[in-house]
Amino acid sequence: MGQQGQEIDSLSFTDVEIDDPFWSPRIRTNRDVTIEYQYEQLKESGTLENFRRAAEGLSGGFSGMWFQDSDAYKWLEAASYVLATEADPDLKSRVDEVVELIDAAQEDDGYLNTYFTLVEPGERWTNLHIMHELYCAGHLVEAAVAHHRSTGEHSLLDIATTFVDHIEDVFGDDDFDGAPGHEELELALVKLYRVTDEERYLDLAQYFVDVRGHDADRFRWEIEHADEVAGYGEGKALDKGPVKTFLDDNGEYDGSYAQAHVPLEEQTTVEGHSVRAMYLYAGVTDLAMETDDEIPVAVLEDLWHNMTERRMYITGGIGPEAEHEGFTEDYDLRNEDAYAETCAAIGSIFWNQRMLEFTGEAKYADLIERTLYNGFLAGIGLNGKKFFYENPLKSSGDHHRKGWFTCACCPPNAARLFASLGGYLFGQDENSLFIHQYVGSNVSADVDDSTVDLELKSDLPWSGDVTIDVTVSDKSSFPLCLRVPSWSEETSISVNGEPVDPTVEDNYLILEREWTDDRIDISFEQTVREIRAHPDVESDAGLVAIERGPLVYCFEATDNDRSLHQYVLPRDGQFEAEHRESLLGGMTILRGEASIPDLSEWESCLYRPVRKTEREDATLTAVPYFAWDNREPGEMRVWVRGEE
Amino acid sequence: MGQQGQEIDSLSFTDVEIDDPFWSPRIRTNRDVTIEYQYEQLKESGTLENFRRAAEGLSGGFSGMWFQDSDAYKWLEAASYVLATEADPDLKSRVDEVVELIDAAQEDDGYLNTYFTLVEPGERWTNLHIMHELYCAGHLVEAAVAHHRSTGEHSLLDIATTFVDHIEDVFGDDDFDGAPGHEELELALVKLYRVTDEERYLDLAQYFVDVRGHDADRFRWEIEHADEVAGYGEGKALDKGPVKTFLDDNGEYDGSYAQAHVPLEEQTTVEGHSVRAMYLYAGVTDLAMETDDEIPVAVLEDLWHNMTERRMYITGGIGPEAEHEGFTEDYDLRNEDAYAETCAAIGSIFWNQRMLEFTGEAKYADLIERTLYNGFLAGIGLNGKKFFYENPLKSSGDHHRKGWFTCACCPPNAARLFASLGGYLFGQDENSLFIHQYVGSNVSADVDDSTVDLELKSDLPWSGDVTIDVTVSDKSSFPLCLRVPSWSEETSISVNGEPVDPTVEDNYLILEREWTDDRIDISFEQTVREIRAHPDVESDAGLVAIERGPLVYCFEATDNDRSLHQYVLPRDGQFEAEHRESLLGGMTILRGEASIPDLSEWESCLYRPVRKTEREDATLTAVPYFAWDNREPGEMRVWVRGEE
Repeated sequence: MGQQGQEIDSLSFTDVEIDDPFWSPRIRTNRDVTIEYQYEQLKESGTLENFRRAAEGLSGGFSGMWFQDSDAYKWLEAASYVLATEADPDLKSRVDEVVELIDAAQEDDGYLNTYFTLVEPGERWTNLHIMHELYCAGHLVEAAVAHHRSTGEHSLLDIATTFVDHIEDVFGDDDFDGAPGHEELELALVKLYRVTDEERYLDLAQYFVDVRGHDADRFRWEIEHADEVAGYGEGKALDKGPVKTFLDDNGEYDGSYAQAHVPLEEQTTVEGHSVRAMYLYAGVTDLAMETDDEIPVAVLEDLWHNMTERRMYITGGIGPEAEHEGFTEDYDLRNEDAYAETCAAIGSIFWNQRMLEFTGEAKYADLIERTLYNGFLAGIGLNGKKFFYENPLKSSGDHHRKGWFTCACCPPNAARLFASLGGYLFGQDENSLFIHQYVGSNVSADVDDSTVDLELKSDLPWSGDVTIDVTVSDKSSFPLCLRVPSWSEETSISVNGEPVDPTVEDNYLILEREWTDDRIDISFEQTVREIRAHPDVESDAGLVAIERGPLVYCFEATDNDRSLHQYVLPRDGQFEAEHRESLLGGMTILRGEASIPDLSEWESCLYRPVRKTEREDATLTAVPYFAWDNREPGEMRVWVRGEE
Repeated sequence: MGQQGQEIDSLSFTDVEIDDPFWSPRIRTNRDVTIEYQYEQLKESGTLENFRRAAEGLSGGFSGMWFQDSDAYKWLEAASYVLATEADPDLKSRVDEVVELIDAAQEDDGYLNTYFTLVEPGERWTNLHIMHELYCAGHLVEAAVAHHRSTGEHSLLDIATTFVDHIEDVFGDDDFDGAPGHEELELALVKLYRVTDEERYLDLAQYFVDVRGHDADRFRWEIEHADEVAGYGEGKALDKGPVKTFLDDNGEYDGSYAQAHVPLEEQTTVEGHSVRAMYLYAGVTDLAMETDDEIPVAVLEDLWHNMTERRMYITGGIGPEAEHEGFTEDYDLRNEDAYAETCAAIGSIFWNQRMLEFTGEAKYADLIERTLYNGFLAGIGLNGKKFFYENPLKSSGDHHRKGWFTCACCPPNAARLFASLGGYLFGQDENSLFIHQYVGSNVSADVDDSTVDLELKSDLPWSGDVTIDVTVSDKSSFPLCLRVPSWSEETSISVNGEPVDPTVEDNYLILEREWTDDRIDISFEQTVREIRAHPDVESDAGLVAIERGPLVYCFEATDNDRSLHQYVLPRDGQFEAEHRESLLGGMTILRGEASIPDLSEWESCLYRPVRKTEREDATLTAVPYFAWDNREPGEMRVWVRGEE
């Protein structure tokens, strides 16, 4: 049963059990290390203490960032996803404890934000552009929905709905209009609608989308009256720094930082803070699915084209600029100073999953795959305890993952994605089953009056070999649609050992037959590809990147003798893949022909005419980009010089 | 009569009259525009008012930077050079007026520094690392020497010697040791010795060199007691920012910013603030000439090799880092953010001129030529009113010359170099005459009991054609030594129309004959050269720069259709030179074969595998680097992509 206007319903994370040689250890580390570690951080950073103080009716003594409540909510969301697929009484009791704390901290009228309760109780809703009350509310709602779907309980859901009802009252006032400074609540309200069937939550989400970017918007007023609003001033959360993110070079108001420069339907380029942008687009796509409205999705498709054709790293990372954590201009894809925040990659996965659901187009699943294996996965250290906030594509060796951040948005965001990865793999429409991502797993779905069990085994990302065992409760004929990854140059497929040649629609193989108990074997060919960037990308001029299967590779100093800028890949050079079980838990490395300069000609000489090539043969070794900075520190590059 | 230990005495600027199609208009602009403009700036910036207030015994009300007195001294020096070669009553009267002001501002005990007189009269000599009393004294002395040599007057010289005598008293105290935080006085004291014959000035210069960089140095004490010294604090010149330039990454004292990390004889790499370094090395070379001491020059030669083989831009510019205005590490030659301060290029010319005098080696004259036509000349706009402080080798189009600077060291430094350029062209040892630089000029020298007049005509930098008319008062036989520029791939020479084939020693052609009235015609071949940088220079990897004759060329957006990073020069491409009289007062441009990407293959595509070259032919146009940013603003690059 798809939603209205929705092509393909994703199968829920609650119905998918992941069992995959690549992903399962990472999900295990996420559960055993990251979620534990993050719980400790909730305590150490004072996040839980903020709730406790608010619950006890204390004043002041707020610790950390003013939106730090959201760390607890994201942890709850991740922990809830874990509880959906495994019994874990210890984790469950800590979840219960945190939920109780939150419950106690909620004010009598439903309001819930410990910064305001403790520091500026009289200043609620006066500073929407930066104070993140609605952003935190969104994460509360997402946690509540996850908690309810995993446990069946209503405790956190009740807290969330009470707060949302209060928000509805505040923003229902005809004299007060405003949008969230950091989008998030929009998509959360659609989730809330989906578990409650309360249409007013959809209406509130639509209101927040519609009010954004209008001339008389609240943000403009707040920026112009920054002295009068919450957050700014002695003893408060902030100096006036954030105000300037809402000003253009001439000091005039410009809402593009929060996608509020013009109404969404007039936006044609992805602008501003990239996490904000992704969450907005995800929420709008959700709304469009519920309202069967093609118009906003057409706008989003244009934005998607702008992003993917002009403003996205090859890793799927987005947002090159650190200062406003976001987008700049077409083809600005600087490598060394790339911001490419881990949360933005996660946000892009959220949005693309919804676009995939709405349109059924494989390109969105392709981008999810690219982002998942590269721009997202690089953000998390192999030990599960260290994280990148920024994901540059070039480093001189001084950029390293850290244990935690003052603004700790990325680690818990990664945790909730790992813990809910099962929800990104399979889809279903009225009579078809879809496999979007090849992650080893078991899933059950009701199709055509039959219960279908799929047992998927995948050797991705190291090879393109996939096996699917299909078991049906009753003989059933339905199309099983298998995405052909864009990187597969040749795909071979057999059913029960017999080669088949199914039709392909929009990069989905359509396998339709009367299913009994059947085995499907697929081989997606993985070749090593030398990729160039559009000629307008100055940062990549003269450079090539190496991909194999879904992986973008990179070069690290520890594997290569010379400084990486000295290597040049020849025009038709070959790379050989070699799987090393002993390397970082098992990695396929690539070794390729290259040339390096003959240094003997350069003694005591800084500049000289060189007419002929004075180069010698060398080998260049690459490792998956996601695995970088897990060994000795040193230089790293995704893009290396390649002969034209 | 060379100084002791000196190979080649430079002929004085007072004996050389420049008449050159390239340089004369620039020297004229320097005289008519720059020096006038800078005099106005001395008034507008409050520099002269500071002297006036000090003279009137007032307190407070100091304007500008704490070392701003030096702007007046540098202007006086430049104006004095002008007065050496032309009568200019108006300029002379302004010079007199400024000298009188300075005289009146000098304190009774000889001390002279308007910042301290007006703001911190009790705190003299308490903060040597940054307060620049000795630096200002050095510029006073240089101005005084120039003024005395040009006018024969003693007024400014007396002021300077009185102040230096006071300094001698202060630093002669056995309980007080200290070196100038910004070197400059050392070289000035040697100049002062040369006009006064007072050896104690040499001794004082030697003292300042010797005291620098010892463990118990004054700077360390000042940094550790920054609260107690002049300059820092409310109402004073500075916050404590400069302290951190004397700290290493661990917060420990590190004097390398001012070349005070170890004694000079232990220094093997050029470090710290690059203008400071150049002035120190110049002063040390001066001292070595006077004391006939080879040891410090051997140290300086090692430093010169480090600088020119690892830490110098192709333009002769030095010091890539903005934060401390100086050197960083070997092969750090970033282009876009290059600092390469105009004053540092000027300082390098000062130092190299002295190394040339000491050693007689042509390589120093080569570097002076490179720096003069490129790293220095780019600093001054063609209109004489706008200046670069930083000289990047790559710009996205937003780096432009400015009229003046808060720290206005570069414009008056450029003015004094233009006005004294005659002093850099010719040399003389016991019996030979040397031509170091080919700038059209007339000069007289006494050689071998004869007065020799040289009338030199030069077509540099646009061609390598040079004519020299030699006239002697009495028949005389002496070697005339003509430098062969390192860029000349083939040199032909004739005397009175007859080809000759003289010996060459260290890149000087030795023309020895009995001179009567003779004409020498020389042609230094100018070819277009594609230059590569050492493979360890990451910023230039895969790139080439174009030189012709003494000029480094660059590429500007206004001459080229595509973004400059899209052009690739082929392996054996040709450039054609074309002189355009109408372009910026006459420029030889270069037009070369290049290729650009075929954009038609890239529609709606950001990344894709490209195996074959998809490029088309194009022409790339270059202009001299010194001329950049004199037309429409836009992208600029010295280094462009070149096929390996």
